[in-house]
This record gives sequence, structure tokens and C-alpha cells, in this order.
Amino acid sequence: MLDRPSCQALDHDDPLAAFRERFLLPEGAIYLDGNSLGALPKAVPGRVREVVAREWGEGLIRSWNAAHWIDLPRRVGDKIAPLIGAEPGEVVAADSTSVNLFKLLSAALELRKGRSVILSEADNFPTDLYVAEGVRDQLGRGHRLRLVAGEELVSAIDEEVAVVMATQVNFRTGFRHDLDAVTAAAHRQGALMLWDLSHSVGAMPVALGRADADLAVGCGYKYLNGGPGAPAFLYVHRDLQDRIRPPLSGWMGHREPFAFERDYAPAEGIARNLCGTPPILALAALDAALDLWRDVDLDALRRKSIALSELFIGLVEERCAGLGLTLATPRDAERRGSQVSLRHPEGYAVMQALIAEGVIGDFRSPDLLRFGFTPLYLRYVDVFDSAVALEKILRRQGWDRPEFRRRATVT
Amino acid sequence: MLDRPSCQALDHDDPLAAFRERFLLPEGAIYLDGNSLGALPKAVPGRVREVVAREWGEGLIRSWNAAHWIDLPRRVGDKIAPLIGAEPGEVVAADSTSVNLFKLLSAALELRKGRSVILSEADNFPTDLYVAEGVRDQLGRGHRLRLVAGEELVSAIDEEVAVVMATQVNFRTGFRHDLDAVTAAAHRQGALMLWDLSHSVGAMPVALGRADADLAVGCGYKYLNGGPGAPAFLYVHRDLQDRIRPPLSGWMGHREPFAFERDYAPAEGIARNLCGTPPILALAALDAALDLWRDVDLDALRRKSIALSELFIGLVEERCAGLGLTLATPRDAERRGSQVSLRHPEGYAVMQALIAEGVIGDFRSPDLLRFGFTPLYLRYVDVFDSAVALEKILRRQGWDRPEFRRRATVT
Repeated sequence: MLDRPSCQALDHDDPLAAFRERFLLPEGAIYLDGNSLGALPKAVPGRVREVVAREWGEGLIRSWNAAHWIDLPRRVGDKIAPLIGAEPGEVVAADSTSVNLFKLLSAALELRKGRSVILSEADNFPTDLYVAEGVRDQLGRGHRLRLVAGEELVSAIDEEVAVVMATQVNFRTGFRHDLDAVTAAAHRQGALMLWDLSHSVGAMPVALGRADADLAVGCGYKYLNGGPGAPAFLYVHRDLQDRIRPPLSGWMGHREPFAFERDYAPAEGIARNLCGTPPILALAALDAALDLWRDVDLDALRRKSIALSELFIGLVEERCAGLGLTLATPRDAERRGSQVSLRHPEGYAVMQALIAEGVIGDFRSPDLLRFGFTPLYLRYVDVFDSAVALEKILRRQGWDRPEFRRRATVT
Repeated sequence: MLDRPSCQALDHDDPLAAFRERFLLPEGAIYLDGNSLGALPKAVPGRVREVVAREWGEGLIRSWNAAHWIDLPRRVGDKIAPLIGAEPGEVVAADSTSVNLFKLLSAALELRKGRSVILSEADNFPTDLYVAEGVRDQLGRGHRLRLVAGEELVSAIDEEVAVVMATQVNFRTGFRHDLDAVTAAAHRQGALMLWDLSHSVGAMPVALGRADADLAVGCGYKYLNGGPGAPAFLYVHRDLQDRIRPPLSGWMGHREPFAFERDYAPAEGIARNLCGTPPILALAALDAALDLWRDVDLDALRRKSIALSELFIGLVEERCAGLGLTLATPRDAERRGSQVSLRHPEGYAVMQALIAEGVIGDFRSPDLLRFGFTPLYLRYVDVFDSAVALEKILRRQGWDRPEFRRRATVT
């Protein structure tokens, strides 16, 4: 079963196989880092060229209306909405994930004024925790940041908790929370639920609406393929939207930005969560990248994601037994996102050697090799070839030579 | 003197004339709205194409190091520094002007803890005031926002004032503050000085260092020509940098973003004012747009800016006397930025008629026609032709017909 011809057969029968043709992928590389920066969709370069040359260059200021730049944050939000189980008007593209977290955490603490705790995971994506520290210190009202292990998150929710802030899929291990269960647990204790979907949106169906989740943020440049540093998004449950007074009260969130009124008056609905002028070139790239999701069956996406990661784990177990690797990702596919993480004591050097062989994953300190499986542009044979490369490197001499051990800024 | 051949002669002798060739300008239009959205520099489309196709498409995640994306916010900041009289390491490109104002206003109130007042102008750019409201409400410590007329700004500074927040050049009238004098007045009262340079950077030399100004923000998409919604910048005086604990404490401002430490520890220097992942496509466009400033003599820029606006005012006074226009901009060139604003009771319709004639300025409610003079790509003949068009429209019948009076979202 786990040989290359079987993988070719799986590719042949893959209902998502055609999507690979809608990306520009580098020659001679297998890209397993789409969970860090998604690959380039073919629709993007032309759209960006058009925005630069025609909309900016020729249209100039007129393009705010004529090219509908002014509506772009909401249009992009509405394209993301079906990917996360939200309704039109519940999502807007804006700023970075960190800035959006600041907005929504601030809003959550305001909505649960009598409560003092932000509950999160010690192993959450660090910027989420940094931002929570920033909100806590900025407010200076004695809020506490309570950090627990992922598996203790639900049991740590009590009546002191104003907001539970959790990332659905852990960036290190790929562990996936049960979104329905954690949201329900938060609500049972009267807390608000704020999800970071950065490592789940575009990798699997997400059902915020079904869970009745309150707030969410997510990243535009991982599985959504919006480009490096693409604008992020935020979601606010329709029932909460008009109860939020944004701390980052910039003009794009004003009821009438171009009336230039002296006093701030928040826009109706999701738009009040905008702040400054959005970076149109970056936002247009994300907008173009999102179009291919119109044709994606999210359940098929999840099935392929699981199949790819199962295949990889199976191959590693078969080929690399005794070579120093440990699986850091849950063995149960239901508990996983769309990545597989392996521990190795010389993880950094192993990853550098793999990258030199054209298998691009990444490394997270102290010992994690991360492999992201993006169902839209990865084939089963890519997974097979990656496992073979990993085995080869671990078996050969010299994979841990000095040039692979020197750490760069970003890995 | 004020005839077209004289203007052609001025263009012939203009030491900045060659810069016009470095922009892609639309055919058949005279663009007088570079103070709202700067024109497209020729260097930009190629650079953006390269970043999309090669750095993102081929380099993928490796480009954070290989293409130096990680340093881009600081490199762009260092390119802006000489335009505002700052030193390398005092400026960084990040987020939007509004978000940067939030950061620096928060920092200023923290640095002047015993004081309760944010002092600004009632006629400041509205988003600046909205953000100040947001900071005040977020902190909830009884801070007050004291708004006065521009000419009363200096006399309104007293020992209650924590920070004076002023925009050097007023977006409506083009009135220009004396940066040295206002900064000195703030310091005499022990207040911090926070400048918004959005309407001055790239239009004239700015000398933050000479004035010993504390904090500043500015826009990347007006006179810096960085593209629609280009990232903004912020400046922090070297002596204050390590005393600021940013409220928006995201991972890009962490001492070691890629160590993924659990606790926030701010980076040394200006970098701690970064928050989330920067939009690389938009930032690269700004970066490319900034290169032409290496060759610009800022004093010559200011001389031409004054000459253009003097010419326009002179022409309007000569040709449009008695046609309902009033000068809203100071008649003294020293008190002006690089725009001329004229009031007209039917200002909106007049501007629409002008735009239909190919003269693109903009309108600000209730009655202001704004004309921005960007010395790098405007000629003296453009100013002449614009004034002629304005006269023609005001003298002819029908300029105020219904289609010109219908207001669009953005003008």
C-alpha cells in the first residue's frame, strides 16, 4: 500500500487534483510549509499587476470608488465567511492577526466587565499571548492572564473567566481543539469564546456559526495563500457587533469616514472593526487568492488533508523506525490539523538537510520538524517522496554537518 | 508674467523637472491630488512583480531571510528617516497611521503618567482625534482630550498636558505649523510632542531632530507615493525608545520573534513598535517608491512647492476674481504646506466639473476645493492649465448641473 505507484493511483483518483494547476510552484521542490506561507495562486500576479498599473497608476484617487477599493475589506471578509461557517457581514479583512486580537480581546473584556481572567494555553501561538499581555497591561485593571496546558483548557474555565482565547490548531504540534466543545464550555460558564483560526482556515471546514462562537481572528497568508504578510481577518458574531466599541477607533471604522466628522461614531456592524486605510495591493492579492475557494468542497479538503497526513505518518513509522524521530502530533486524525510535527534531537540540522534536498518544511525550537499538508497543491507522491528523503537523510552520514546547524533568523 | 510661455520657461529651468519622467502618469489628466494618493513611480511595478513572482512564488518561506523581508520595516524606516530629519534607527514602517498613533499616544500617556490631557486641534485630521478618543476610553483613567483652534495650540499647552498631538500641515486648509516652535512650547511645559507628518513628509524638509521632537507618525501613500493604503511609519526619539512598552505587543516587536518564547520581551530600539507580520507586497511597493528620494534636494523641493502654489494663487486671484472663490490657505507661503484650498459655496459640483475636464483635485466638506502640488511630477504649465480650467468652468453655464452635484462615497 505505501509504495510510490499506490500514491500515484491516489493522485489519479484525487477529486482535488486539478487545484494544483491553479498554483505557481517552484521547480524541483516539495513545499510542506504552506502552513507558514501559502504558495502563489496563478490568479494573483495578474490581479496585482492590474491594481498597480491600472487602478493605482491610471485611476489614481478615483479608484477608491471606481475600482471599489473602499469595499474591499468587506468583500474579502465575505469571501472568507463560508470557509469558517460565518454569514456575510460577520467577517472583515483588516490589519494583522495580532492587531485584530488586540481589538477583540479588548472588546471581550469590555463585554464581560465584572470578570478578571483571560484564559489561554501556555503553548498558544506566542503573539497571541504577547497581545494578551499588552491588553492586560494597557487596561491596568487587574486582569490576569491564566495559561494552562491545552488539555486542561476546558476544565480551567470558571466564573472568573471573561474570555477564552484559543488557537484551534496548535502551531507546534498540530493538535486540534474541538471547536464546538470548547465554545460550549466557555458559554456554560458565561465566558466569551475567541478563536484564532490561523492554522485551520483553508485547511478544513470551520463551523463558527454552528458553535455559536463569539469572536475569531485568522491569518490571510497561510492556507488562504494571500501572500507574505497578507491582511488578516476578524469575525464578530452578528449579535455582538453593535455592542463593541473598538479601542482602535480609526476612520475606516467610522460611520461616515469621508464626512470627516470631528467625533468618532462607529459604523454599523462588522465595519466598525476597521481602523486605518487598508493596504490595497496586499488586500487585492488576498482577494484574488480567495477566488479559488468558490470551487472547493471543504469536506473533500479535510478528507484529503487527513489522508495526506496519515500517509506521511505511516511512511515515517515504516521507514524511519529507530532513527530518532518521535511523533509530536496526535495519532488520532480527528485531533489533528493539517500538519505533522516530528521531534528529533537534531531537528534543526535535519530540516536544513531536507531543505537542501528540496523538501521544504520548517523547524520550531527546540526540536520540532514541521510538515504542513496543503490539500490544494500537494500530491500523494509528494508525501511519499518527502518521507523517502527524510529516511535517506537520517540514514546517511554527514546530514548533521556544520552548515546545516547554523541557525538563520527565520527557519 | 502669469502666461503660459512664462510657465514653460519655468519648467525649462526647473532643477526637479527630470523627476516627472520617473512616474507613470495618466494621459490627459492633471493630477492635483497627490496629497491624498501619490502617483505611481515607474520603479514600482517591476519591483512588485519581482516580489510576487520570484520572492513569494519561487522563494516561498525562504524569502523571509533570502529576500530580507524580515528587515524590510527597518530598511524602509531608514529610507524615510532623512526626509524627516531623523537618524537611522529612529523610524520604522508599520501598520497604518491610525494604528501607529494609537501606539505612540498610549506610550506618551504612560511616559507622562501624572498628567491628564491630550491636547490637539479641533480641525486635526479626524482619524487622529478618533484614535485619541479610543486611547482615552481604553485606558479609562480620566484622561481628557482638549481640542482647540490651530492658532491657539501653543497657548493651550499647560502643565496638565501629557502630550501635544498635532498634524504639521492641516489636511483641509494646508496651514503649516512651525514645528520647532510648537515642539519647544510643549517641552517648556514638560509635555511630549507627537507630530503627524502625513501631509508634510515628501512635500518639504522636516527637521524632527533639530526640533528634538519626541514622537511622530506619517503616511506612506501621499507625497511618498507608496501606493493605496501603503504602510505608514512611526518615529521615536532615540532617547525614548527603550522607555516605551508598546501596548500592541505583537511578535514582530519581540526581542526574538522566531524563538517563540512564551513571554513578551520588547526588542531593543525602534523595532519594538512593530506588531504583527507586515504586508510585504505593500511594503515592497513603498520601498521601491522611496528610492527616488536619494536624488532629491529637499530644499529645492520646498522652493518648487512654494513656487507652484504661489503661481496657482496668483492665477486664481487674477482670473477668478468675483467668481465666488475664497482662499482658505494662508497667503504667506511660510505658513503653507504644499496644497492650496479654495472655498466655493458649490465646491462639490465645481470639483466634479473640474475632474470631468481632466483636472483632478478633491473636495472636502462643506465647501473646500483642495489642490495638492507635488513638486516631483507637476509642471508649472500644469498649474497654469488648471487655473485656466477652473476659470472656464466658473464662467460657463451649466457647471453646476445635476450630475456634478451627486456625491460619491470618496471624492
